[in-house]
Amino acid sequence: MEDVDSIFINTINRSSRCDGKSDTEKYNGDDERSSRYPFVKALSMSGGDGDNSYSTNSLLQKRVIRKVKPVLVKNTKGMMKNLNFPNYIKVADLGCATGQNTFLTMSEIVNTITVLCQQCNQKPPEIDCCLNDLPYNDFNTTFKFIAFFNKIVKSKGLCFVSGVSGSFYSRLFPSKSLHFVHSSYSLHWLSKVPKGLEKDTSCVYITASSPPSTYKAYLTQFQSDFTTFLKMRSEEMVWNGRMVLTFIGRETIDDPLHRDCCHFWTLLSTSLRDLVSEGLVSASKVGSFNMPFYDPSKEEAIEMIRKEGSFEINDLEIHGFDLGQSNNYGEDYKLHSQKSKAGEKEAKCIRAVSESLLVAHFGVDIIDTLFNKFAYHVSQHTSCTNKTTVSLVVSLIRK
Amino acid sequence: MEDVDSIFINTINRSSRCDGKSDTEKYNGDDERSSRYPFVKALSMSGGDGDNSYSTNSLLQKRVIRKVKPVLVKNTKGMMKNLNFPNYIKVADLGCATGQNTFLTMSEIVNTITVLCQQCNQKPPEIDCCLNDLPYNDFNTTFKFIAFFNKIVKSKGLCFVSGVSGSFYSRLFPSKSLHFVHSSYSLHWLSKVPKGLEKDTSCVYITASSPPSTYKAYLTQFQSDFTTFLKMRSEEMVWNGRMVLTFIGRETIDDPLHRDCCHFWTLLSTSLRDLVSEGLVSASKVGSFNMPFYDPSKEEAIEMIRKEGSFEINDLEIHGFDLGQSNNYGEDYKLHSQKSKAGEKEAKCIRAVSESLLVAHFGVDIIDTLFNKFAYHVSQHTSCTNKTTVSLVVSLIRK
Repeated sequence: MEDVDSIFINTINRSSRCDGKSDTEKYNGDDERSSRYPFVKALSMSGGDGDNSYSTNSLLQKRVIRKVKPVLVKNTKGMMKNLNFPNYIKVADLGCATGQNTFLTMSEIVNTITVLCQQCNQKPPEIDCCLNDLPYNDFNTTFKFIAFFNKIVKSKGLCFVSGVSGSFYSRLFPSKSLHFVHSSYSLHWLSKVPKGLEKDTSCVYITASSPPSTYKAYLTQFQSDFTTFLKMRSEEMVWNGRMVLTFIGRETIDDPLHRDCCHFWTLLSTSLRDLVSEGLVSASKVGSFNMPFYDPSKEEAIEMIRKEGSFEINDLEIHGFDLGQSNNYGEDYKLHSQKSKAGEKEAKCIRAVSESLLVAHFGVDIIDTLFNKFAYHVSQHTSCTNKTTVSLVVSLIRK
Repeated sequence: MEDVDSIFINTINRSSRCDGKSDTEKYNGDDERSSRYPFVKALSMSGGDGDNSYSTNSLLQKRVIRKVKPVLVKNTKGMMKNLNFPNYIKVADLGCATGQNTFLTMSEIVNTITVLCQQCNQKPPEIDCCLNDLPYNDFNTTFKFIAFFNKIVKSKGLCFVSGVSGSFYSRLFPSKSLHFVHSSYSLHWLSKVPKGLEKDTSCVYITASSPPSTYKAYLTQFQSDFTTFLKMRSEEMVWNGRMVLTFIGRETIDDPLHRDCCHFWTLLSTSLRDLVSEGLVSASKVGSFNMPFYDPSKEEAIEMIRKEGSFEINDLEIHGFDLGQSNNYGEDYKLHSQKSKAGEKEAKCIRAVSESLLVAHFGVDIIDTLFNKFAYHVSQHTSCTNKTTVSLVVSLIRK
């Protein structure tokens, strides 16, 4: 054991202590360094099941999964029929995050398969459900829901759950092993902050006033990441396997730079500027922070899928994006208290998906204040109607 | 989504909140109830990487892995040759616990396979490394070591790591999917406390003074659990797949009841009795606590393997058991300070593997005091030579 053993220990000792804290310390060392450091390593939905956790604040993501159900069911059935009812199916949920949402998806897939098998007089397959997310994702909290999932699926044949920790911009599974891939509200996260961004102390993402070079840098990173994602999956998936991908996108009319005034990152930028003006954060600290995020247009996504070439587009739908305060903005939110509640809800939701990144860069002290500001700014925009943010739902077949 | 979705939510709502706390509360409700409650659900090695964590206090388990290396290497090679160098290998480490030890084993297996492939001019396979433990195991801490593992194995072809949360006394993997199974220092944990134990307020496990019915109850539970383990694996493993199992056993001369005076559970019982006499714990609380543990003799293990019938015994070795304070008891530990240090080390080790069970039953307040007592009692036994505890190392081939 000495050789491998000592290599292992030496590798660990050479690196920083792997408890997550060291990364945070690095980010907060100095602006120059943190701007270069690939802080996307800190990307993870907030763990545990407390008030500010992702598990507690992922109703939006749950509603998205519900809305995508018909696409999921249709493609699960199509996959089973195209593959001629195999006796073993491996399904992956990429970017499963923490909490119960991933099991809603898995339950729906398992249910669809077993009902279809009954209808077609086929023996139900054994199903491997693989839940993937980044290394700092709170898998412990997710795993605690397995018992509930097992209760639901126990009458439906043998199901197995595993957690796969790693970036979906790398290989995660053996060659030709996956039959079905699902990913909801994850692919808008980039593998890193784009290179070549101009330092902008007023905004953490593209806004209507960003220079074209900012848009270009983000688009280039998205193109590279999305192509890598498709390539990795093309290696992992069986022929005629299927993917259903849901991610945040935008509707463009003419101007690719256009983002609506109440885009969540725009409002987060406004909130950070408030903290700068109050002396709680330095402008340069804001300038060196950029969201590793991109919301492509339908055309940008289609172009990359065609260029990469491994997948055929089966469906592409555009769903409305609604952080869930109401389906009836402007009417329900006339009252101050209602607007305020809407702001708080959106703040909880955005906090759960971005707190780890923000803490890594700005430290933990400003977070409560930041999201109080954020909630306020959201409440000022409840009547906006010119929203460009949408959900893109793409289903693909491995050629 | 409504049907599956609502079933899922209802299932969760009917059950207790799944944050682990509810279980602990149940255990501590009253003696009668906690004695019936299957508190083995609380079984998990201590999480995190702090001073009392399993990750920090598993040097004993690491030494055991090192000592078993020749058996591991021999059987990995044998498996590859018998299976005629498949292009895909799925390996499972059952009871992987938390921390880096599981990656030492996986690194050794991967290294052995790739070196053998080079020697035999074969293409190295893609390797799936599946890490299993119970649902309350701290997988988050284990997953943080994946980056180090990937660095080591990246030159050796494609390796994939996944976490599988569940009891190895149930099915964990699809049929005929596993090529190699490893389990180190886990199989001595039973699936539950045996039924029919007489209430014994003086001891948490079999001692020299236990009635024969106690021994019988433990043996029966071990026989049932070990048979289940073998049956589940026989369904999951490919023909000619191999298992290397290491677990705590005992050497028996004539009397099956015989346990040495410094068996760790005997010393833990002594420590609990100290707390009873100091009024910190009630005698009935101790009486309703029993370790879900069994250390079989070589003969008892062999009998079960033969009866179950799916596996051929390839090797069976008996290794000395040493909690690691010294290989030279009696000489090195004459000094009070050395004895005391030995006690503290053993206390840390035993605390890391039993704290979750003890907290679930006795609450968290007594733990520090309990293990101070335990350390003291260990220090009084450093010169004992009549030890019966051993490690059993069994390698099996799927018939």
